[in-house]
Amino acid sequence: MDTSPGLPVVAAERLHRQIVAILAAWGMDAEIAEATAGAMVDTDLRGIDSHGVTMLIIYEERLRAGRLALRARPAILRETPVTALMDAGGGLGHFPSLAAIDLAIAKARRMGVALVAVRNSNHYGAAGTYALRAAEAGLIGVTGTGSRTRCVVPTGARNAMFATNPIAFAAPTRRNRPFVLDMATSTVAVGKVNLCWLNDRPVPAGWVVDGAGRPVTDAEEARQFCLRRVEGGVTPLGGLPAMASHKGYGLAAMIEILSTQLSGAIYCGTADTDPRAKATPYDDVGHFFLALDPRAFRPDGAFEDELDQMLDLLRRAPPVDPAQPVLVAGDPEWAHYDRRRVEGIPMPVKLVHHVRAIAARAGAPFLLFGQAAGPHPLG
Amino acid sequence: MDTSPGLPVVAAERLHRQIVAILAAWGMDAEIAEATAGAMVDTDLRGIDSHGVTMLIIYEERLRAGRLALRARPAILRETPVTALMDAGGGLGHFPSLAAIDLAIAKARRMGVALVAVRNSNHYGAAGTYALRAAEAGLIGVTGTGSRTRCVVPTGARNAMFATNPIAFAAPTRRNRPFVLDMATSTVAVGKVNLCWLNDRPVPAGWVVDGAGRPVTDAEEARQFCLRRVEGGVTPLGGLPAMASHKGYGLAAMIEILSTQLSGAIYCGTADTDPRAKATPYDDVGHFFLALDPRAFRPDGAFEDELDQMLDLLRRAPPVDPAQPVLVAGDPEWAHYDRRRVEGIPMPVKLVHHVRAIAARAGAPFLLFGQAAGPHPLG
Repeated sequence: MDTSPGLPVVAAERLHRQIVAILAAWGMDAEIAEATAGAMVDTDLRGIDSHGVTMLIIYEERLRAGRLALRARPAILRETPVTALMDAGGGLGHFPSLAAIDLAIAKARRMGVALVAVRNSNHYGAAGTYALRAAEAGLIGVTGTGSRTRCVVPTGARNAMFATNPIAFAAPTRRNRPFVLDMATSTVAVGKVNLCWLNDRPVPAGWVVDGAGRPVTDAEEARQFCLRRVEGGVTPLGGLPAMASHKGYGLAAMIEILSTQLSGAIYCGTADTDPRAKATPYDDVGHFFLALDPRAFRPDGAFEDELDQMLDLLRRAPPVDPAQPVLVAGDPEWAHYDRRRVEGIPMPVKLVHHVRAIAARAGAPFLLFGQAAGPHPLG
Repeated sequence: MDTSPGLPVVAAERLHRQIVAILAAWGMDAEIAEATAGAMVDTDLRGIDSHGVTMLIIYEERLRAGRLALRARPAILRETPVTALMDAGGGLGHFPSLAAIDLAIAKARRMGVALVAVRNSNHYGAAGTYALRAAEAGLIGVTGTGSRTRCVVPTGARNAMFATNPIAFAAPTRRNRPFVLDMATSTVAVGKVNLCWLNDRPVPAGWVVDGAGRPVTDAEEARQFCLRRVEGGVTPLGGLPAMASHKGYGLAAMIEILSTQLSGAIYCGTADTDPRAKATPYDDVGHFFLALDPRAFRPDGAFEDELDQMLDLLRRAPPVDPAQPVLVAGDPEWAHYDRRRVEGIPMPVKLVHHVRAIAARAGAPFLLFGQAAGPHPLG
């Protein structure tokens, strides 16, 4: 998106105020709206455009469908010195997830390791947000989430049985930016298929399959398999069976187990039949958050120094293409972050119109452009 | 292997005695040899032929090269109620890893979650062994390991910078066999490339690349890139950049961090230059072991029941090919296990000759066939 000339650009602070205004108009507590907007804007700053402000469109749909409780406050249901189970109250995932990783961080600082599970939640934005938060606190962070959006087809199956079930892992460093891996366990997120469709490009063979396991490359057709049809969808990481897609399928199941069965949330594959799903209007999505203190194992700084050495070595590795240096997980996001903090966040015109309409429907002011937003020149 | 007619077949108990005899002749303590042989035979029973008795060939090479301390006993260096750091003393990884996962299980039963890191270790067999041990104790288990064997090429790089860095995850169930995911984070293990070579089959495009990132399909050439040459090697899971191989690369780095930097072991990429590597004759491989008690989060049995429901649903999912039902991670291994417990473990003739020669060089009896092995009719 950054490279598209002429796109409207919005400063992070202005985007933050706009999101807060909409969330508050939807009834969200000020504290929760601030935290949610912070996580969303941070996601746009890091270039993960599919999981930031664009999600307002989906959140509005879910709110109107009664699937989202924006007045919810998370509650801790069970707790030990190294574990906790949290109920997100049917609200958006960002605030309870920030609370959950902060709780895991606090426990792991005292004890060495901790895991917090969250249920009755909803979309939590970019998984990397929470893993990175642990790394910025000097700890290793791991998180993953389920979702109601069934779109990933297990190896050998006709129908989608999982969401894109992302995993994020971050680790602290001394000289480098933290290592941040944030990935769907599918070959691609559905947003990448949408991008092919928006740009009239074919979908690379192996991203999407039909109900017979055949690659679908027509973008419109691929989108139908991902979003509308029961059969077919996105492939698990690996892509095709000969390229070990059963591993991506296994990782999707692992993330589902840690997110859903561990917390007692609802598995998307049984949402049609699970009596618990019928008893609640909410999506009841689960997440997990692990924090791990390297100082429980190593002298202070040794972990960070040795990780720095590995990251340096990887970045200095001879590249196949001299013009494309070898990257480390998180590098593209850090590059976006540094540029967008200064230059602002580019927003497609269509997205700006969506935000304007969402604000109007919510009874919130439109703040992305014009004097009403205050003295931010980049706005 | 099972389907090859006429292969010699050895009962698990007899193979166990043979491995114990060799390990003991190499100087290993009886207790450690018993545990190591148990893990190795269990791996063969589960059909993971690349990681069981065949590894004796590699272990003998490392022993002769002085890289392996078979008289070693593991020692706990640091410990808290939920963490521990163990030094494996330069020995084989199986015994310290069994001790490490058992320690993690005991701690997690009391506290809810625990992580044990191991350094100064060596090959630990199949990662699934340790994750499954946690699941059989009613806990979730997660493990991973590094290795000195550099063979996996980061996306965009010319040279191999990681080992196949496996992850294993297992979870307890009530009605089903435990869920056991045990996978290299590369597209395939090097053993699969060897299998193409042994059977004069081309290597599927995308498994192995040369130093320019081009697919290598000639099996002999592929083997050179995996085992002998600095440039090229196995691709990370995903295979090609367009199929998101950067995710497999990220997972390999994640497992390296949790295994190597967390424990203070030696990263294979710096083994040539790390002063610590020069100061020890041993490989100094690291592993990690996480145990997590679902009862810290859920009422007793709820996790297992809901996981059973998901596994049932996956196995009953409409398959692309009616003759090939949808599988769940661990299913192929359980099928092998049930058959081989009864029918014995098939061993290629070449492997039997290797074991005979290894036994002779060690001064151990050859026990796989003949009366010397005792009254086991399957032997």
